[in-house]
Amino acid sequence: MFRKLLSLEEARQTLKESFSPKPVGVEKVQLSEALDRVLAEDVVAPIDVPPFDRSTVDGYAVKAVDTFGADEDRPVALKFCGQVAVGEPPSVVVERGMTAEIATGAPLPKGADAVVMVEYSIRRDGTIFVHRPVSEGENVMEAGSDIHKGETILRKGQRLASREIGVLAALGLTEVSVYKRPRIAIISTGAEIVEPGKPISPGKIYDINAHTLSAAVLECGGEPINLGVIPDERNQLEAAVKKALSSSDAVITSGGVSVGPKDMIPQVLGTLGKPGVIISGMAVKPGKPTTIAVIDGKPVFSLPGHPTSSLLMFHMIVRPVICEMAGRTEETSQIVKAVAATKMFPARGRRTFVMVNLTRDKRGKLIASPVPTGLSGAITTLAKADGFVEIEEKKQFINEGEEVTVYLFMGKKS
Amino acid sequence: MFRKLLSLEEARQTLKESFSPKPVGVEKVQLSEALDRVLAEDVVAPIDVPPFDRSTVDGYAVKAVDTFGADEDRPVALKFCGQVAVGEPPSVVVERGMTAEIATGAPLPKGADAVVMVEYSIRRDGTIFVHRPVSEGENVMEAGSDIHKGETILRKGQRLASREIGVLAALGLTEVSVYKRPRIAIISTGAEIVEPGKPISPGKIYDINAHTLSAAVLECGGEPINLGVIPDERNQLEAAVKKALSSSDAVITSGGVSVGPKDMIPQVLGTLGKPGVIISGMAVKPGKPTTIAVIDGKPVFSLPGHPTSSLLMFHMIVRPVICEMAGRTEETSQIVKAVAATKMFPARGRRTFVMVNLTRDKRGKLIASPVPTGLSGAITTLAKADGFVEIEEKKQFINEGEEVTVYLFMGKKS
Repeated sequence: MFRKLLSLEEARQTLKESFSPKPVGVEKVQLSEALDRVLAEDVVAPIDVPPFDRSTVDGYAVKAVDTFGADEDRPVALKFCGQVAVGEPPSVVVERGMTAEIATGAPLPKGADAVVMVEYSIRRDGTIFVHRPVSEGENVMEAGSDIHKGETILRKGQRLASREIGVLAALGLTEVSVYKRPRIAIISTGAEIVEPGKPISPGKIYDINAHTLSAAVLECGGEPINLGVIPDERNQLEAAVKKALSSSDAVITSGGVSVGPKDMIPQVLGTLGKPGVIISGMAVKPGKPTTIAVIDGKPVFSLPGHPTSSLLMFHMIVRPVICEMAGRTEETSQIVKAVAATKMFPARGRRTFVMVNLTRDKRGKLIASPVPTGLSGAITTLAKADGFVEIEEKKQFINEGEEVTVYLFMGKKS
Repeated sequence: MFRKLLSLEEARQTLKESFSPKPVGVEKVQLSEALDRVLAEDVVAPIDVPPFDRSTVDGYAVKAVDTFGADEDRPVALKFCGQVAVGEPPSVVVERGMTAEIATGAPLPKGADAVVMVEYSIRRDGTIFVHRPVSEGENVMEAGSDIHKGETILRKGQRLASREIGVLAALGLTEVSVYKRPRIAIISTGAEIVEPGKPISPGKIYDINAHTLSAAVLECGGEPINLGVIPDERNQLEAAVKKALSSSDAVITSGGVSVGPKDMIPQVLGTLGKPGVIISGMAVKPGKPTTIAVIDGKPVFSLPGHPTSSLLMFHMIVRPVICEMAGRTEETSQIVKAVAATKMFPARGRRTFVMVNLTRDKRGKLIASPVPTGLSGAITTLAKADGFVEIEEKKQFINEGEEVTVYLFMGKKS
């Protein structure tokens, strides 16, 4: 049976028609747990910040009008009427002709509307001589001038970094509504696959994909649930996928999607719910056998067994979906421009991704050199690659010296 | 008492002479917990990957020499001698003139040295007709060709992303030695400061710094220990700093370092251990009152109370130290080039940092616009800033349209 494979864009469109990713829920977390989470609701300020008119200097609280005309030669004399300390409500009222000593950060006492800096005053017994005039509001941070009560200060969908957490603290909040992390079940299949830590018998290899995919899920805001290695046997696979679907928001499998008679994944996915398999293979290299199903509202991504292929397809197809389920709507791939170190050829009629390593030449230009992929199953290929170059189906080749766009893998330091 | 303040570079040098940051210890973590941690030792491969010669295609395992001269018209006839399945040790031996069926990923049976792709063979009863010759090693991934047993495959100091975790899994490892996260105690001081969640009485404001600094410590690989708000009172401060020193690897305080009579921090730090206070103020703006002590081998960073100033000084002075204590030796600030939207002036004789917001003009150029800092205590200043521009002490001003380097805050999406 020959069928034209979907292009990457067609596959994305097909997926979108059967499944629109959206946040899976909302939960409250403490500020200390809020870093890197995504706000699930607008934050409206419950109080003014600062909550009161605050002096921004050490000096004397005055009525500004009393200081008009003051200068070095003819200071204005005001009567000392008390002190205002930081952190305490003022016990004095500043009437015309009077002034109160005030510290930086202390609340402006009633009657005062400005503060004269201590540098521009001389105190003699009960009298303060002011050498410079101040205007109304001078050296005062007004109540609500930083954040106004009722103001929408943070927006739904914003990711919380240290500065946003500071804003929440300023409002006196101790917890915040964030989107739940989508739970992503991960299954490895293959008769030769053994979980790390177990003894390895002849013919077996250790499972890589469950671990790279778990880390990749964490990197984009999901919570991985590693269900381990499941034999390539129909009943066991079916039970594992059913269990995965019931305990998660999306499922990723790796292995078992090629054309071999033992590759059961597509058959299993066809029987579990509607609409079932929506994408059977894509015109990409690597990653061609990638199979995607939607089962009763949950997506199942079946990626190839090769570590490089599966992680690449994760980046191209799965990551954007998980990001959206985690509420990270603004997330995009990091890209850099570089110069091709050698000619690069696409596979005939397939969108081709070439793993590249980035270095800088003498003049500081970024150079993208293909990482040899003679060994398509090689994990070291992946470990050496900083990212990949995408070659369009219709392009004949990328020439040496041509400018290319490199999609960077996450988690790589620049 | 007048003393020339240290420049930023002098302060860094002075700190370096009294305290050389290094990792605080090593611990083993599970692979599932290893993301973003830093390797504390070289990883030497305990096994070959793959552990055996593996077929990379579905086909027939042969002695290459038997296929020499085969073509479409004159196929070579080989005697079928059995099957090799994936994940099982081969039970057959391929002698001269014989061949065994083999699946992708299955171990090459004894005697065979190459695999003929199934596409280039025809099977008739017990005979396989091979239409194309293969050379020795063709369609075989040799044992150890991805990772060689004994090879140093990951290096001490490397940060673990999904791909490095894949390499560890490929080796069958379930745990890995990483540097301990340095524990950083955080103390807020100030008579007006109240912890979020508590009722706020007149004259009080909520603590911001403990929360922004905790998040910033997490962002650079440390483990924050928030010791809460301590009154600006000598005995209580002394007890808090002593407790902080005994339970952490470094201490950050904020507030209480200005010139007011109530600013006790410098006095307290002078009495707790050797060498005590090594930096009392720096020629920077903001951040001038920043005070640094080293007490019996542990650094204490006393930052100003203003949220913007304290987080900026964290980035300039504290962050590089915590990164090194976390083993992140390669960590550097992210910078971008932008065009100044307006003239920017330095404070006289002080290294000046101007908070800026980044936008793009019509032609896609990055524009750096200063965030108004009329309110020096404002948390919103910080929340609106994407980063900051540094103006050298000797520079008169940065002109409108001049190219500037913008240091990006961490945790900001690009």
